[in-house]
Formats: sequence, structure tokens, C-alpha cells
Amino acid sequence: MYIFETSIRVRYGETDRMGYVYYGNYPLYYEVGRTEMLRSAGLSYRAMEEEGILLPVHSLSIKYMEPARYDDLLTLKVILKELPTAKIQFHYEIYNEQGKLLNTGETVLVFVDAQTRRPCRAPEALIKELEKYFPG
Amino acid sequence: MYIFETSIRVRYGETDRMGYVYYGNYPLYYEVGRTEMLRSAGLSYRAMEEEGILLPVHSLSIKYMEPARYDDLLTLKVILKELPTAKIQFHYEIYNEQGKLLNTGETVLVFVDAQTRRPCRAPEALIKELEKYFPG
Amino acid sequence: MYIFETSIRVRYGETDRMGYVYYGNYPLYYEVGRTEMLRSAGLSYRAMEEEGILLPVHSLSIKYMEPARYDDLLTLKVILKELPTAKIQFHYEIYNEQGKLLNTGETVLVFVDAQTRRPCRAPEALIKELEKYFPG
Amino acid sequence: MYIFETSIRVRYGETDRMGYVYYGNYPLYYEVGRTEMLRSAGLSYRAMEEEGILLPVHSLSIKYMEPARYDDLLTLKVILKELPTAKIQFHYEIYNEQGKLLNTGETVLVFVDAQTRRPCRAPEALIKELEKYFPG
Repeated sequence: MYIFETSIRVRYGETDRMGYVYYGNYPLYYEVGRTEMLRSAGLSYRAMEEEGILLPVHSLSIKYMEPARYDDLLTLKVILKELPTAKIQFHYEIYNEQGKLLNTGETVLVFVDAQTRRPCRAPEALIKELEKYFPG
Repeated sequence: MYIFETSIRVRYGETDRMGYVYYGNYPLYYEVGRTEMLRSAGLSYRAMEEEGILLPVHSLSIKYMEPARYDDLLTLKVILKELPTAKIQFHYEIYNEQGKLLNTGETVLVFVDAQTRRPCRAPEALIKELEKYFPG
Repeated sequence: MYIFETSIRVRYGETDRMGYVYYGNYPLYYEVGRTEMLRSAGLSYRAMEEEGILLPVHSLSIKYMEPARYDDLLTLKVILKELPTAKIQFHYEIYNEQGKLLNTGETVLVFVDAQTRRPCRAPEALIKELEKYFPG
Repeated sequence: MYIFETSIRVRYGETDRMGYVYYGNYPLYYEVGRTEMLRSAGLSYRAMEEEGILLPVHSLSIKYMEPARYDDLLTLKVILKELPTAKIQFHYEIYNEQGKLLNTGETVLVFVDAQTRRPCRAPEALIKELEKYFPG
């Protein structure tokens, strides 16, 4: 299991007239989380794309418990429970500065060949890097 | 059961560098769908808010089958399978111009008193209007 | 001179916690306006891109007079004062349902060859269509 | 004169199908810049709002020279050339990692009383803090 944490500051434009972060902005925060998790493992999502692998999202689910507000400094926890195969599943938890759990989410992404736009296996280099977090 | 359809034209700014609508923009499309469904039933979400009822999203799930592209004229089908109680659940299906199903989703929203920010029952007027679609 | 009008309904996710449309969302509305103006002249921005011409924005300016609010049905007026050369300039005016002018804006876009990513002249077909609106 | 710098990492969802940051996302980046500039001066825009002062944007202009791309780590320079009165003007410059200037912009914001929604003078505390950067 690989657990990673990063911070996100809520922007004014991400709130809505209820005074909360709009429910449709959390997928963007989750994207930041998984990109930074890969970077922390020495992997670049951009480089992977440039080498011809796309990673579109296959499914998303979110449970909203409490709202985030403007200027909150959120902690985003990203959890990888299994090594990727043709898919990679990320779990997310967002906490506010008081340590309150605001929402939890999951995404499944699929590896796709940029040329053929067809599913493919996760790149070997990615699996190799991530295996370090999944000992024996 | 109440089934409603509306159209959405994909904006350039809603695509990402993969050339597809960004996965985090569909919640915005779903919001358009449920607002227009309520409007078609003679109900205004804005008026409901002004009368002191908020309707934050409690959960969201999306299954992405095929991507939408820039300038696609999407058909968004919104389905209400049950009358609201303290919650209201919407189902969504998005189709492109060729009739291909691009994604399906669900949201559960909860009725909240704007003053106390605590859960409350769906407004009587809303239930009365929607009951017309759920005969006997 | 070519003057074109289209309607835009304000989405919840486009408002911010002030209760107004976020100032950074008007460029998206302006994009809708110029795309629909071209469509009304029988021209497709998407088709132009597929034929190898990109049209990135070179400059933007907006004057904000009054805010737009959630669910407002805005009227967006797009004005083309001159035929395009290597650039095309659009002027915008947004009005609410009471006919109040909310903001005015301008964008200059440049024609770019998608292959070379270098500036080029406006496509002949585009100029020919638009010339109809600029008699004599 | 007060010059401040902060960093912004480009998110995938902020790009468009041209492969660049969508032109309408820079106002969001500028917002991050001015908020962080105020924070660095010991001032909180959120606290100001909670004390009853809103700061809507009055005008915006942007000149786009070069595009930003996915995952770029941008440097955003914010410049305050004059002390605020009933308005405050910020200048912005965005650079990529190679030090290339991508775009420049300006915003004028107006101080507004949250109760009356009418213009008012900049809060004394704000002026006092900023005066440190404008000696003699």
C-alpha cells in the first residue's frame, strides 16, 4: 500500500454561491493528488503521455461529508492499494485544517495507447517504481 | 418515473489536452440537467434557494464509457426514479449526436435549511409537482 | 459590421461565494458567443481546426459593470467590426433579462497553422462567408 | 512598489484540446497571485471578507505571448505599483520554467461594503500594512 499526502489551497473561483467548494471541483483536486503521488515516486504523468500512454478516467465516485471553504488549506491523502494492471485505482481522502474528513473518493483509470486509443498494460517502468511500495 | 432530456453543447474550455471533455466537467453538465428537469416541472431551483432551502450534493458516481469532444451537441437524459424525501436522487445518461452512450452517473442531494444548515424534508410544493410524474 | 446574439444560462458551478458569476468565467461565455456567431454564418470552428488552422487568443479585456447571478438567462451580443486578416477581433456585450448591461469585452485571436504553430492568414472560405456582412 | 512571486503547477483539467492552458484559466491564476501577495504581507483576503469588505473585479486585461502547458511549474509575479484607494490595481507576469514570459495582465478591483454592496474605501489595516512597501 502506498499512502501519499499533498496540500491544496482552495481558490475563490472554486467556490459557489453556497460558499462551499463546488462539488464538481473535487475531481480536479483528486487529479492533483494522483499526479503529485506519481511525482513523489519519481514518475511523471506528463512524460508517460509523451511516451505514448494516455490514462483516461474510467469511473469516479465521491462521498461528500462536509464542505470545504474559500482559502482552506486542504490535506489530500491519496492511497494506492494495489499495483496497476491494465487499470489503476486511486482512493482519496480530503481533510481540512481542523483534521475533519470532508470527502472520500475513488477513481479507476485505464492505460490507453495514444496511437491506437486502445487499452494497454501499465508501463513496466511505472510498475517497477511502484513495486517498491508493495514489498513481498 | 420522470424522464427528462436536454441538450448541451461542449465548450472549448471544457476539453483537455487529450482532446476530450475533462472528466471533472460532467458534474457541471449533470447540474444543468437536474436544474432544467426541475424547470420543466414548473420548479425553480433558484427560487427554492431564495425560500431558504439549499440542496448540496451528498454523493456522486460516474462511469465513463466514451469521450465527448469539442462542439459535440450532447443529449443529457435525467431520470428521477423516486419521489424525494430528505434526499433526492438523479440518474444521468449522456449521449452524443450518433446516439452513442458516453457516460452514466448518479447524484444524491440532501435538502438543507439555509438558516440552520441542517437537513430538512423536501418542500411540499416540490413533492406536489413531482407527484404528477408518479401516478398511483 | 456583423452583430450576433445568443443566450447563456448561468450554471451554479459558475458562481462564486459572493453569489456572482466568477470574473474568470466570462472568457468561457465569450468563447460560446464567437463560436455560435461563426456557426450562424455557416462556419464551424471545429471544422477549421480539423483543416489545420488553430485560433489561439492573443489578448483579452473585460470591463465588469454589474454581476450576473445564478440561473440568469444572459444575452450575449457579439460584434465583428472588421473582416479578419491574420487576426480576428470580437467585441462582446452581456445583458441580463432586465436588459441591463453587465459587462463588455474584446478578444483578439490569431490564425495559426496547426502543423508549424506559426501565424497564417485567415482561411479564404472564412473571409468569403464573412464578406457578406460587410457590403460595399 | 511591492513585487511578489509565487508558483503555480498547471493542472490537466486546466488545459484545452490545443494542448495549452485555456485562455480563461489565467484569471484564476491571477487570483491565486493576489491572494498570496496579500498573505505574504500578513493580510488575509478571507478575513477581510468576513469583516464585511468584498473586492469584486472591475476590469481585467491579458496579453498572451506564449502558451503554458500541462504540468508546467509557472512563476507568477504580482506587482502593486500604488497604494489602494477605493480601488486596487494588480499587475501580473507569468513565466515558465525556462524563464520565458508567457503572458502579462492587469486587474482593477474595487472595495465594496458587503452589507450595502456599495463602493467604499480600502480598510485602514490593509493600507497600513501595504504602506511598508511604499516608503517615503
